[in-house]
Amino acid sequence: MSNESKHLVIIGGVAAGMKAAAKARRELPMMNITVVTDEQYISYASCGTPYFIGNIVKDSKKLLIREPPYFKNMHNIDVLTRHQATSIDTKSKQVKVKGIEKGRDIIFNYDKLIIATGAQPIIPPLPGISLGNIFTLRTVSDAFKIKSCVESGKIKNAVIVGGGLIGLEMAENLVLRGIKVTIVELLDQILPPLDKDMALIVQKYLEEKGVGIITSDGVKSFEGNGDSAVTKVITGKRQLLADMVILSIGIRPNTKLAQEAGIEIGTTRAIKVNERMETNIPDVYAIGDCAENIHLVTGKPVWIALGSTAAKMGRVAAINATGGADTFKGVLGTLIVKVFELNVGKVGLSEREAIKEGFKIESTIVPASDMSHYYPGAKDIIIKLIADVTTRKLLGAEIVGDGIVDKRIDIIATALTFGAMVDQVSKLDLAYAPPYAMVMDAILVAANVLNNKLTGKATGILPQKVAEKSDRGEDFILLDVRTDMEYKSGHIKGCQYIPLDKLASRTHELDGSKEIITYCRSGLRAVQAYRILKNAGFKNVKYMDGSILAWAYGLEK
Amino acid sequence: MSNESKHLVIIGGVAAGMKAAAKARRELPMMNITVVTDEQYISYASCGTPYFIGNIVKDSKKLLIREPPYFKNMHNIDVLTRHQATSIDTKSKQVKVKGIEKGRDIIFNYDKLIIATGAQPIIPPLPGISLGNIFTLRTVSDAFKIKSCVESGKIKNAVIVGGGLIGLEMAENLVLRGIKVTIVELLDQILPPLDKDMALIVQKYLEEKGVGIITSDGVKSFEGNGDSAVTKVITGKRQLLADMVILSIGIRPNTKLAQEAGIEIGTTRAIKVNERMETNIPDVYAIGDCAENIHLVTGKPVWIALGSTAAKMGRVAAINATGGADTFKGVLGTLIVKVFELNVGKVGLSEREAIKEGFKIESTIVPASDMSHYYPGAKDIIIKLIADVTTRKLLGAEIVGDGIVDKRIDIIATALTFGAMVDQVSKLDLAYAPPYAMVMDAILVAANVLNNKLTGKATGILPQKVAEKSDRGEDFILLDVRTDMEYKSGHIKGCQYIPLDKLASRTHELDGSKEIITYCRSGLRAVQAYRILKNAGFKNVKYMDGSILAWAYGLEK
Repeated sequence: MSNESKHLVIIGGVAAGMKAAAKARRELPMMNITVVTDEQYISYASCGTPYFIGNIVKDSKKLLIREPPYFKNMHNIDVLTRHQATSIDTKSKQVKVKGIEKGRDIIFNYDKLIIATGAQPIIPPLPGISLGNIFTLRTVSDAFKIKSCVESGKIKNAVIVGGGLIGLEMAENLVLRGIKVTIVELLDQILPPLDKDMALIVQKYLEEKGVGIITSDGVKSFEGNGDSAVTKVITGKRQLLADMVILSIGIRPNTKLAQEAGIEIGTTRAIKVNERMETNIPDVYAIGDCAENIHLVTGKPVWIALGSTAAKMGRVAAINATGGADTFKGVLGTLIVKVFELNVGKVGLSEREAIKEGFKIESTIVPASDMSHYYPGAKDIIIKLIADVTTRKLLGAEIVGDGIVDKRIDIIATALTFGAMVDQVSKLDLAYAPPYAMVMDAILVAANVLNNKLTGKATGILPQKVAEKSDRGEDFILLDVRTDMEYKSGHIKGCQYIPLDKLASRTHELDGSKEIITYCRSGLRAVQAYRILKNAGFKNVKYMDGSILAWAYGLEK
Repeated sequence: MSNESKHLVIIGGVAAGMKAAAKARRELPMMNITVVTDEQYISYASCGTPYFIGNIVKDSKKLLIREPPYFKNMHNIDVLTRHQATSIDTKSKQVKVKGIEKGRDIIFNYDKLIIATGAQPIIPPLPGISLGNIFTLRTVSDAFKIKSCVESGKIKNAVIVGGGLIGLEMAENLVLRGIKVTIVELLDQILPPLDKDMALIVQKYLEEKGVGIITSDGVKSFEGNGDSAVTKVITGKRQLLADMVILSIGIRPNTKLAQEAGIEIGTTRAIKVNERMETNIPDVYAIGDCAENIHLVTGKPVWIALGSTAAKMGRVAAINATGGADTFKGVLGTLIVKVFELNVGKVGLSEREAIKEGFKIESTIVPASDMSHYYPGAKDIIIKLIADVTTRKLLGAEIVGDGIVDKRIDIIATALTFGAMVDQVSKLDLAYAPPYAMVMDAILVAANVLNNKLTGKATGILPQKVAEKSDRGEDFILLDVRTDMEYKSGHIKGCQYIPLDKLASRTHELDGSKEIITYCRSGLRAVQAYRILKNAGFKNVKYMDGSILAWAYGLEK
């Protein structure tokens, strides 16, 4: 039997599944291809649903990229919606499928099987969880329900449980609909993939936008009214009014079907696949949110469910399932999220993750302009870079700002893919013209600062560490070296003040027996002050990376 | 003598020179540092001057980043403006400097010398070249003169001689000031670093914006009026009215001083340096626009004068001249230019350059959206990728569009730095969310298309090659496979029309003895049609890369 006349069955009809179907068709024009999905809609843009709810994307048709007749007519792909795959027999190579409405069973014989069963939101079994107006957002059907609720006009207060990506996107889009939003997060920070110092910058920004943020507090129960709609969220420490709740505490891979068929599950609890997207069972592939990946920085299995990864895995599985050969080596945990006008991105390992992985790390925080400062519209971004002290290789980056973040994240994603050293990143020949970048792009500047730390040219300390020192009551000198006007406009509590241009002649005012930490606005003058003090013989000196621009803990006048 | 008490002399006070001075100071707080420059202004943003003339940057102070007193007071760097370095004695390690106003000579002894003499515009010795209102744009002083001329209110018509980056930026900024602009270019295309097919897209766009573009024509002379101001530009084929002329035919490195001192000049006619920025003479460095570089793709010397490169070279020279160790390996010829709302970028080798370098190449042109198509504000870009058939490594990219171009150029710049294969680029874990990219970013899509061509999965032909075939009167079938509505809205002259969904059943209408080239709107359906025809047994089939979106040669209805 030639590949052409074989039967490819795909379970799952959203990002990974439909990508695999379309790619398989392009590879083999005559192959039989069947997609089964328990959902009503296929091939939709699930990442766009928050913007549909916020009415930034007004027409739901724009999210529903393709419908079954399109795939039948244009690609001769059979799509069965509202059909649940109930079991896989990997010996006889059959999938049993049950129609959700009609209830009849269908048996499909497959030559190749691709599992793309996705993931589902975690719903905690809390008292009151089944009250009305408590939603998760995963599918386009979920989005229709939430949008309809929002447009009922009855929603004044919403509580979002979970401060991850979906939670933040929903916060923005509900605020755009005139709803007062509070985010409740169990951890001590929002945006768990980021380090706390960078997450705190986002938190401050959201609070300025009127979003309530409660961290280190968990939801205990929900209370409702006579109509059985939610009215209150009870947390460990508070009671919050809520006409609507969005649960976004996380997702888990849909692996039950695979697991029952004897398909191996990985350490991340998602389906284990090799770089050809093959499971442990011959002719069975797994892709998308139900499958695990390799993290390209650690080389270890990781489960990071993203549409962009699903599409790539779908493509690779389709090529291999149709007789070709392709591989997908892994991911970097790259993420980007728009939070009102703030762009927040991360790639590779955070400082916390890198330390947990056993790396000896150095890091820096560098505020910079996203384009030439004199060009209209130039905006600030704050870059955190993390590197391995031993190899001087970059490990990860986190970037936050109203300036252009995604470009710099993608540059670092590309650099990490090729195991770039920090020094190599600082020399990249990036595109420069005033409307696009500074003459030394922000990311090159940040790499230079980090390289100075890696090579021992300067010793810095991150703002969060300074704040922790203060909290612990440690005795050290925090030295503000800005201009008089800057100092008076707001400085860190307890600092000593000597402007930079007077520092060389006033070093006698400093107690050399104490640790001295210099700071300015962005860190640049702090480094100069650091050098002046080192040159004057002070031994125990550091500068504060990012200084005031990265200081998220309040100032006094 | 310690490094600290040595004397560093830097000749040149713009991008490279002042960067080197500032970095040397940070490295060695007590070193003597002297900068001499024949210019009046230092440390200015020369790349911003077109936008100053266009009044996008209104205040000249924004371009003049720092003045001599700042460097003296803040960094203890002596800056002598309006002082011309007239000779270097590399044996006695002395630089002779002449004050331009006072005419007195000063001799500086140096321990380390950094030459950053920059480049100057080429001024062709044509009749009438010294008439009034004929300008070059290189320095901020040039910009003041041009802006003053523009603001005289007397300028109706401007001719820009040379269609390179500066020429295009000036075209936009003069149009913004209400001036009618014509660009005259001697070559058969504007933007010489780009391939002609991509440059033609930019040319069409500029013409739509009302900019006159004359290619394959050279200026022969200038004519003036009684006030000795230019009134006419006489080319080989035309006479053009002109109250103002901008000469932007190119620049050449200022190497006379170095050459007379016995410093080696490279094959590119710029000063030869190694990766430490050292010349052939001990303790003498050269940086910025007067020095050559290595092209990271070819490994050969190249002279590409850009501010971003100058800054990096300045930093490396300063580190080495102060006793440290740093290297700058080379450049990729990365460029970006804003032309009204169009973004135009290039990195690595163009197709023409790659062929000239002896590479056996494959290339593609892929139109794509810069973000999720359903997200408001999504715009188109057209990506050309060039790869080496033998190694399947990427060689270069050119991107044009009103969507985001600089991000994709920078991704490719980073990939090229690490010798990425096309397949590796197609799998990059780039940041995805609807406001930033498509689920498979445009650059990944383009890499996939190119990889299909490299691996023989599809045979494409670029629009320019199709146009050339037609011009030569070759007998082939150009097959439009779009919808009826699309076909009627405009198609390529002489095409045969069969819509994609009817193609499989209507292949008998096609003459299989002829070469068939399929096309659609963007190339995607053209590939599907290609596969249908191949599957139906047609041997001589190609699809047109980029199809109508990349077709710059007119349509008929």
